[in-house]
Amino acid sequence: MKKYVDINADIGESFGNYKLGFDEEIIKNITSANIATGFHAGDPNWMKKTIDLSVKNNVAIGAHPSYQDLIGFGRRDMNLNSIEIENIIKYQVGSIIGFTGLDNLQHVKPHGALYNNAVKDQSIAQAIIKSINSISSELIHVVVAGSLWEELADEAHVKYIRETFADREFMSDGTLAPRSLEGSVIENIDLILDRTISMMKKGKVKSLQGDVIEIKFDSICVHGDTKGSVEISKKIHDKLKTNDIEIKSMFEILNANL
Amino acid sequence: MKKYVDINADIGESFGNYKLGFDEEIIKNITSANIATGFHAGDPNWMKKTIDLSVKNNVAIGAHPSYQDLIGFGRRDMNLNSIEIENIIKYQVGSIIGFTGLDNLQHVKPHGALYNNAVKDQSIAQAIIKSINSISSELIHVVVAGSLWEELADEAHVKYIRETFADREFMSDGTLAPRSLEGSVIENIDLILDRTISMMKKGKVKSLQGDVIEIKFDSICVHGDTKGSVEISKKIHDKLKTNDIEIKSMFEILNANL
Amino acid sequence: MKKYVDINADIGESFGNYKLGFDEEIIKNITSANIATGFHAGDPNWMKKTIDLSVKNNVAIGAHPSYQDLIGFGRRDMNLNSIEIENIIKYQVGSIIGFTGLDNLQHVKPHGALYNNAVKDQSIAQAIIKSINSISSELIHVVVAGSLWEELADEAHVKYIRETFADREFMSDGTLAPRSLEGSVIENIDLILDRTISMMKKGKVKSLQGDVIEIKFDSICVHGDTKGSVEISKKIHDKLKTNDIEIKSMFEILNANL
Amino acid sequence: MKKYVDINADIGESFGNYKLGFDEEIIKNITSANIATGFHAGDPNWMKKTIDLSVKNNVAIGAHPSYQDLIGFGRRDMNLNSIEIENIIKYQVGSIIGFTGLDNLQHVKPHGALYNNAVKDQSIAQAIIKSINSISSELIHVVVAGSLWEELADEAHVKYIRETFADREFMSDGTLAPRSLEGSVIENIDLILDRTISMMKKGKVKSLQGDVIEIKFDSICVHGDTKGSVEISKKIHDKLKTNDIEIKSMFEILNANL
Repeated sequence: MKKYVDINADIGESFGNYKLGFDEEIIKNITSANIATGFHAGDPNWMKKTIDLSVKNNVAIGAHPSYQDLIGFGRRDMNLNSIEIENIIKYQVGSIIGFTGLDNLQHVKPHGALYNNAVKDQSIAQAIIKSINSISSELIHVVVAGSLWEELADEAHVKYIRETFADREFMSDGTLAPRSLEGSVIENIDLILDRTISMMKKGKVKSLQGDVIEIKFDSICVHGDTKGSVEISKKIHDKLKTNDIEIKSMFEILNANL
Repeated sequence: MKKYVDINADIGESFGNYKLGFDEEIIKNITSANIATGFHAGDPNWMKKTIDLSVKNNVAIGAHPSYQDLIGFGRRDMNLNSIEIENIIKYQVGSIIGFTGLDNLQHVKPHGALYNNAVKDQSIAQAIIKSINSISSELIHVVVAGSLWEELADEAHVKYIRETFADREFMSDGTLAPRSLEGSVIENIDLILDRTISMMKKGKVKSLQGDVIEIKFDSICVHGDTKGSVEISKKIHDKLKTNDIEIKSMFEILNANL
Repeated sequence: MKKYVDINADIGESFGNYKLGFDEEIIKNITSANIATGFHAGDPNWMKKTIDLSVKNNVAIGAHPSYQDLIGFGRRDMNLNSIEIENIIKYQVGSIIGFTGLDNLQHVKPHGALYNNAVKDQSIAQAIIKSINSISSELIHVVVAGSLWEELADEAHVKYIRETFADREFMSDGTLAPRSLEGSVIENIDLILDRTISMMKKGKVKSLQGDVIEIKFDSICVHGDTKGSVEISKKIHDKLKTNDIEIKSMFEILNANL
Repeated sequence: MKKYVDINADIGESFGNYKLGFDEEIIKNITSANIATGFHAGDPNWMKKTIDLSVKNNVAIGAHPSYQDLIGFGRRDMNLNSIEIENIIKYQVGSIIGFTGLDNLQHVKPHGALYNNAVKDQSIAQAIIKSINSISSELIHVVVAGSLWEELADEAHVKYIRETFADREFMSDGTLAPRSLEGSVIENIDLILDRTISMMKKGKVKSLQGDVIEIKFDSICVHGDTKGSVEISKKIHDKLKTNDIEIKSMFEILNANL
């Protein structure tokens, strides 16, 4: 039985005069923060504020790099080659190190289309792994649990954390059920909570097709962009605690696993 | 008599499809490179290429942060407060560390309006000094020789290098003669060369007003944005060598001074 | 006694994924909309949506050009010369004409620092007037009531509308009391409403210094960026109506004045 | 036998401090200019300068809209839907109308990836045609000769000009041979010149596969981004003249065809 898990969320996605997300509230329900680094959202001033908020709440800090596409919020494929992907990741991960120093940066989690491409395209996953590792072998790579990306991170012998989603169904091969499939996104909050605890305790879950499959993950991704998502996050957080599951940062989990 | 000096130049100022400057040529005449970090010029791909070019030519690497103003090339005052200035510098210096690592970044030299403001405005000079120092006390600050900025860097006990210009006259108080003053920019190349050697050997120079003043500097700033400026840079470089003045990087100079 | 007035507000200030302001609500309380044109806020998709919203609500459309400064929301002086100001205004006013056609564009009102500079700097006011007029002599210039800008528009024989603010005090010379002066911004909503009606009916108001001064204006600027400001706008709108003051667009007012 | 043809080129592709292309020279060899509108290149100041240059040289002015991608120079597919494409075209075509007025804008020619997509994707070609036509039915659409885009423009009963390239081979179905095919780009300048004259005089050309095919076009696209391309453009221009082929603007050609 698994005894601990990390909870991560994307924060610091405001820009200049534009305020986005309920960072001050979601920060209380998470252990690891993915902070936008200026390419899809965020700017130097918001990065500083968001880092300060994370430190104050004892939340570990991660970089959340993206394609350079403010107007599309990093959600559009930009058709970059591997070298270009390596360069934008080095630039953005570096940018946050300018505020935190290398030692206080826990992890890197790509955003939006870059994240989705890493799941679908092996060469993109490898460019991401290579660029993060070139900065420091101590940086934790966040990968999608059950993906080829996880395998590549494993083969590359880098530190990695497998993340999953509390409100998403899986296929029988362990990959996330695509949003286009009916029933792939779970909306019933009680079901989300029970299922999360069950996955944590048993390490198993019923796939969308009805098979019982193994599910291994270290972090749950939650959202803070609406009042409703913050409430769900709080309920997941509280439900885990009342079930004696410790909520730890990625760094603490990897150390505990040693 | 002074025996060595650094030569620095701004490079890496291309952007996307826009090629600017003769980096491949000027790189041969300098020991320290100020590499644009994406706010007035440069982008992740050009940064990578320019860092590789510097490494290949054994030229020490520095960050060249600026106000965020691509269309104005960082030459317009953006009216930022001290906190905002600290944040843009941390972001940009960090971004280049993503490529080089902290240990391979030698120095930081602000660009354009930010540089000019640091000379004129004590609070801006202090914000610059504070932000660079917060990243690492090993980073070398490039300051204008004879300026208040130099004094502030000295008081802050940070590592700094005083730069000057071979083609500019000085006022009797040791500050640069403003470009608006007639005769403040020297155009005769022989005069530039003789004067440079004389300043290096005697540590003295005649001011625009005619007084003989002391002049102390560690680095000469040259330009590579036109074919003509590259040629002048080469002549300065060669003239220094034939006069037995060693051309060393900022890092080597500070170590030699210990 | 004056019988009609225009109410204008800045809308369309969202950008990409960033939603700003309560456009769907404020649109019901106004007769003229100042639509952001992409330099401080807005983008082609939001411009189209906002134009459609205005048309649907029978609100006249205006361009709201700004310095090119998304991160600073157009609130920072960018130190542009007259030619540069003319060019950014032509570009932005043109951009909205691409959606509306020239005939359906009613007015132009500069935003933020550009607006403030037009009040303070005669050459900037003249560049604004010149550029709008070069596009079409039918376009209405929005100027600050009682400013030098108004005088310049008058001398240039262009069509103009004088705007004022319901919640701001005036100096005895008829100019707006600067925000830095204590008491310059009125916060009591009843006072705002009574004062607005009084100014409309009597054409006079008591200045911050206590003198009774003449006040001539054609449009009241309201805000829709917070729920509270939308409510105030609605109250102003309703109070005007119950006092038999017709709320007409700038275009209708200029025609009625003929 | 055909007696006249237009020559068009992309100009105004500088940005801020970045100068690109030999506009002052290529302008002498063309009759229609495609002026960048700020999304892949160009800015309000360069647009004004380039429009003035065109007027001075009696060259007709066109808009050259693009995906919003300065760093990728508009050469990357941005995955926009039809509505989004309509909006970016309206915005950009409008922006140049802010300088020229509608009556002095002759044509619209999409740039880079947007142009290439219009050839490959019917819905994109239709979005382009629809958006230009919504601005004015007088605006001339530049389409690729022999493409589906041409057919769609024809069916939509809009004014259009078919452009071709002097240095590119065709397939037997009349479409451009893709650059990936060996021999698709002609490099021998004499061959380019002879072939251009032959196509103009006979209305026929030998395809890459060896078949003689009909070729109908109204404009030849030339380049001014290198010294070499300017020279080729000049030779094409002069060769046409010495062969008694009149070089006329798109507008003049459509009028002559009435």
